[in-house]
Amino acid sequence: MSAPIITLTSDFGPGLFVGLMKGVILGICPQARLVDLEHGIAAQDVMAGALVLEQALGVFPEGTVHLAVVDPGVGGARRAMVVRGAGCLWVGPDNGLFSAVLATDPGASCYELGDQGIFRQPISNTFHGRDIFAPAAAHLARGREASSMGRQISDPVRLDRPQPSQEGHALVGEVLMADRFGNLITNLERGQVERFLDGRPVAVRAAATAVFAISPSYDAVPPGETVALFNSTGRLELAVNQGSLLERLGLDPGNERGLGVRVERVE
Amino acid sequence: MSAPIITLTSDFGPGLFVGLMKGVILGICPQARLVDLEHGIAAQDVMAGALVLEQALGVFPEGTVHLAVVDPGVGGARRAMVVRGAGCLWVGPDNGLFSAVLATDPGASCYELGDQGIFRQPISNTFHGRDIFAPAAAHLARGREASSMGRQISDPVRLDRPQPSQEGHALVGEVLMADRFGNLITNLERGQVERFLDGRPVAVRAAATAVFAISPSYDAVPPGETVALFNSTGRLELAVNQGSLLERLGLDPGNERGLGVRVERVE
Amino acid sequence: MSAPIITLTSDFGPGLFVGLMKGVILGICPQARLVDLEHGIAAQDVMAGALVLEQALGVFPEGTVHLAVVDPGVGGARRAMVVRGAGCLWVGPDNGLFSAVLATDPGASCYELGDQGIFRQPISNTFHGRDIFAPAAAHLARGREASSMGRQISDPVRLDRPQPSQEGHALVGEVLMADRFGNLITNLERGQVERFLDGRPVAVRAAATAVFAISPSYDAVPPGETVALFNSTGRLELAVNQGSLLERLGLDPGNERGLGVRVERVE
Repeated sequence: MSAPIITLTSDFGPGLFVGLMKGVILGICPQARLVDLEHGIAAQDVMAGALVLEQALGVFPEGTVHLAVVDPGVGGARRAMVVRGAGCLWVGPDNGLFSAVLATDPGASCYELGDQGIFRQPISNTFHGRDIFAPAAAHLARGREASSMGRQISDPVRLDRPQPSQEGHALVGEVLMADRFGNLITNLERGQVERFLDGRPVAVRAAATAVFAISPSYDAVPPGETVALFNSTGRLELAVNQGSLLERLGLDPGNERGLGVRVERVE
Repeated sequence: MSAPIITLTSDFGPGLFVGLMKGVILGICPQARLVDLEHGIAAQDVMAGALVLEQALGVFPEGTVHLAVVDPGVGGARRAMVVRGAGCLWVGPDNGLFSAVLATDPGASCYELGDQGIFRQPISNTFHGRDIFAPAAAHLARGREASSMGRQISDPVRLDRPQPSQEGHALVGEVLMADRFGNLITNLERGQVERFLDGRPVAVRAAATAVFAISPSYDAVPPGETVALFNSTGRLELAVNQGSLLERLGLDPGNERGLGVRVERVE
Repeated sequence: MSAPIITLTSDFGPGLFVGLMKGVILGICPQARLVDLEHGIAAQDVMAGALVLEQALGVFPEGTVHLAVVDPGVGGARRAMVVRGAGCLWVGPDNGLFSAVLATDPGASCYELGDQGIFRQPISNTFHGRDIFAPAAAHLARGREASSMGRQISDPVRLDRPQPSQEGHALVGEVLMADRFGNLITNLERGQVERFLDGRPVAVRAAATAVFAISPSYDAVPPGETVALFNSTGRLELAVNQGSLLERLGLDPGNERGLGVRVERVE
């Protein structure tokens, strides 16, 4: 049998807090393979965390344990949770982080993490990543059943993803996030856009930018020009070939979310 | 037996220099489990390195090898050292990095790293992390005795940690560091503060901020308000619930150290 | 036999894209040891990527698979490639990333990555790191022959490294990159400089800085003073002991490349 995989996602930044979670994990499950997914999530930005986890769907082997901590409510009333869904296990606070998992797999089941003697003692009120979630992930990686860890939760928190709407000849969506290259990723999905356009000519507009094609790749346009394409997760993305659209639009990182994007069909 | 664990801490930033140390380690000890602890330490800030390593105490399994390189004196006269203490092994320059280990475990023993044919040749004068400390850590992880690596050191360098003092009705400490969330971590420890207060009402002051309780968790106060609490290592911490106190006080990262913090008891 | 090692280098920044490549790799080659080399390469800076990979030469164990993705031409006409050279395997786009490997090992052989059923389907046009290069690296780590992966390439892209030139009593080179400490690393190599100087006194000049010795280590000069030395890869480096030369010269990170450096011999 392969060694179990545990991924780690947080808003801790790469560094000490992540390293300490790994120390706790390896003390419980020495054979775990640890993979950092993303620790650069803006502090306490649960939606960004959910978008990151969405991209892990279908990429990691079945049985992977995904540990995620973006946890503005640490030490308060929010529940600690494990989700069994989409072929994997997901551990973290019940605050919407796992919305994409729950949306993808209607058969997912959720369990509140009860102590069961597995947590690190004494449990701090500020670092449940180390004291609660890391031990829980390690025990799951060792084969413990999620359902044995606490009572089932029927109403996990789900974040509302903004949904595109149709306004006449336009499909109106918005930017969800920018990636490291300054590319803008939208909530418009390939199937939806293609059905809407139905082969007709297109104009894609965001802020002062307009492009008149959806291209197969960045370099379908000359360097420095704006391009629209479907990205590696099937979302409509706006970019500058070999440049940063975020920068060109004068947006600070983090301020791009919610920017309106219009896909217009020429009738 | 479990695979040996080696943690890595440095002021190198995440990236190439760290990757090269890992390459050297895996060439000597292919089965080592490598865990990054912190590489974002401000360049040549030995005290910050010591504070990071302090937090690893008691978190990693016994026998873990902690490799730490914050080394402004690289290539000069400072000694290279391995410390056996607090159940682990610690490898790096003898410049105070391991002060917390030595303070925690009075029975710790220190050895100067003599070459013994284990270093990477030729030894550069600028990158002992790769040429001296990584090979030493790898050999320790393979089971080599620290005491076989060089002569014992009786006077390892220790950094003086600023100590809180009592001034009338106030216990006066200072900020040691900010974390990634802009929370300010002080040199005031839970036991000391609780003994001082002895159950009486409290005012905690730092710069223009004052709070009048020590709370169990961040969200004991409304979002955006200042809160004092004991953090996950038992230190008094000042924070803004779901915000950054560092930013609110107008401090640049790195300039927070030494900021005075007063714990006043109401008599 | 030891577990195979795969290093990862990219301009993705540490985070999600890197994590996803690891997920794909572990799905194919669960026993692979994954080591991040550098992900902070400036976006689409192929030359910087080549300089990073150069430093891995001779550091990792024989047989290591180096996966590198700095890929401004993703989805376009550039070839995907595996290089067998310098005792290791190198996987990435054929755009010059592997120039140092090819220069170091004249016997290196290159193969275009044909699909052979090993790629992740559907192959996106924006993330070949996940869909093409990660699967290829994982299959190589499992022991598949590079030569079985596609037809041989006789004309891999090579970047021209700027070469030093002699102008009268001066050897004139330039800065290749700054490291994380603000040290400036040049294209002048130890052997070349020593042959040129032949034991005579030296002046090293760059911008408004001049130093009159090549020192054995940073701390051969007082803190805050400029120093020239040969660094851990044998290149002439200009630095400030315990400071940042990049900052002192008022250069923004990334703008240091190409800065002229003169090594003058006193006749």
